Amino acid sequence: MKIHNILVTGRLYSEMAKLLQEKGVNKNFRFVAENEVCRDDFFWADAYVGFRPAPRFEFGNIRWVHSLGAGVDSFLWNREWKEDVLLTKTVGSFGKQISEYCLSYMLRDLQCHDVYGWYQSQRQWKPIPPQPLQSQCVVIYGTGHIGQQLASYLGMFGVQPIGISRSGQMKPHFVKVFPTDQASEVLPKADWVIAALPLTNETYHLFDEQFFALLNNASFINVGRGATVDEMALWDALENRNVRLAVLDVFENEPLPPESPLWQHPNVIITPHISALTSAEEAVDCFLQTLQRIEANEPLCNKVDVQKGY
Amino acid sequence: MKIHNILVTGRLYSEMAKLLQEKGVNKNFRFVAENEVCRDDFFWADAYVGFRPAPRFEFGNIRWVHSLGAGVDSFLWNREWKEDVLLTKTVGSFGKQISEYCLSYMLRDLQCHDVYGWYQSQRQWKPIPPQPLQSQCVVIYGTGHIGQQLASYLGMFGVQPIGISRSGQMKPHFVKVFPTDQASEVLPKADWVIAALPLTNETYHLFDEQFFALLNNASFINVGRGATVDEMALWDALENRNVRLAVLDVFENEPLPPESPLWQHPNVIITPHISALTSAEEAVDCFLQTLQRIEANEPLCNKVDVQKGY
Repeated sequence: MKIHNILVTGRLYSEMAKLLQEKGVNKNFRFVAENEVCRDDFFWADAYVGFRPAPRFEFGNIRWVHSLGAGVDSFLWNREWKEDVLLTKTVGSFGKQISEYCLSYMLRDLQCHDVYGWYQSQRQWKPIPPQPLQSQCVVIYGTGHIGQQLASYLGMFGVQPIGISRSGQMKPHFVKVFPTDQASEVLPKADWVIAALPLTNETYHLFDEQFFALLNNASFINVGRGATVDEMALWDALENRNVRLAVLDVFENEPLPPESPLWQHPNVIITPHISALTSAEEAVDCFLQTLQRIEANEPLCNKVDVQKGY
Repeated sequence: MKIHNILVTGRLYSEMAKLLQEKGVNKNFRFVAENEVCRDDFFWADAYVGFRPAPRFEFGNIRWVHSLGAGVDSFLWNREWKEDVLLTKTVGSFGKQISEYCLSYMLRDLQCHDVYGWYQSQRQWKPIPPQPLQSQCVVIYGTGHIGQQLASYLGMFGVQPIGISRSGQMKPHFVKVFPTDQASEVLPKADWVIAALPLTNETYHLFDEQFFALLNNASFINVGRGATVDEMALWDALENRNVRLAVLDVFENEPLPPESPLWQHPNVIITPHISALTSAEEAVDCFLQTLQRIEANEPLCNKVDVQKGY
């Protein structure tokens, strides 16, 4: 497929304009802020590059959509997709970024930062042994690129990560992978459950009352998509101590509204969707590689399965 | 050398008694609390096993001293050692423990936990990009087992650790090692300086005014020995912003006295010497392996060079 006219929008559009100009890419570009994209742009462009559909998005003459994020639910979930439009997603250092995010909160907990912080404020010297990562049973929902890289980092510290996926198919860096409907075999003994799932019809509110009831004082980290969690069920699980600590980077409604009670739960840590961010450099690199492969009719490792939704 | 009578003392003596009994080791043991060790014990024993010399320590008939910690300054520094007494130290998971300790504080900082904690308390959604570990320039003082393992873990995240040692000899997992007197070449650009040094005549107050003056708003972590740091110079460096954050697990006087001003400095994190703890299991395993090698006259990887002091 040949691509001539490319519409670039979203948070990174001006940074990407600068980088693409420096590289001298021989294509027609329009770089436009999301809320300034107009009808004409969609009919002018062969390709749409952005984090999500712009407000008045229509397919027009677009034949290729390239998502600047790893998650593509904003393009697919609860929306119609136009058959034969190619959808690709950005592959970047997300797995590494998410690994550092998760490890930061796991280690902070296992190394008793908050306890020592309190003792410090009291000028008290009270040695409490930290717990090593390898003592922890870690269950990861999602065994794709991101889940695998997280499992790989945890494995370096002696953790034996267990995966949960739709198929239960074995994947590198996991000691075992269970299909979703057999998760009850491992959830009761999990110290940490890390959710790194895309949002699809199958994962919407997957973490519900029934799921949380299987946890025994586990810590729950969500670095996938907010709407995979039933936030009311999570709240109850925090109150019942099925969940001892929730670290949430994603929410069903973002920004998390000020009136959400989650902000002030003592056992909830909230971060504003920063566990994996696309940099302009990574965005440009992945976009150009994908463009090149598309024009050369080469196979794409970052093509989205529109039926599956990821 | 044949060993018959073994005196075991220190924090772990009763746990070690239990484990050694279970293993049915065919030696004469005395398991005694540190402050109950008496003169007769030192003349009865061939071997002394403990974290430090008991209060009324004398060499008596002791021919082998086995330190339950990795640091042996309590046996050697500012003390006379008796020629031809063998000194060995415990080799355990200290490198891994110290790596998890250091990473926990580095990641907490780079992932902006405290900033996000404040925004959470204000119910504010303010994305600030975390910094990846690989963006950091990390200098490690001490290139022995512990320094190497720390460098290895950091390397897995893309850090290129620089070592500082007495000799400047290249060691695995470092991209470069400088001798102590050339540290000024790298210190000004360090984001983190991690001290993992033994206490010897050469390292006493090595981290002094002159050292701290070379830092530009760096973070300083001490997981070695407290007396390697001139705490007054560190205080001034914190005030001058040569040091932006100090994470201190060890102190010249331990427990850190309640009157120390360090407890309340806003940019100091204090932990009570817990970054590497010997477990009873590791203590027994290393002790028994060392005992076996000594009796078989085999080379020892954990023999201390009494002249060097580590």
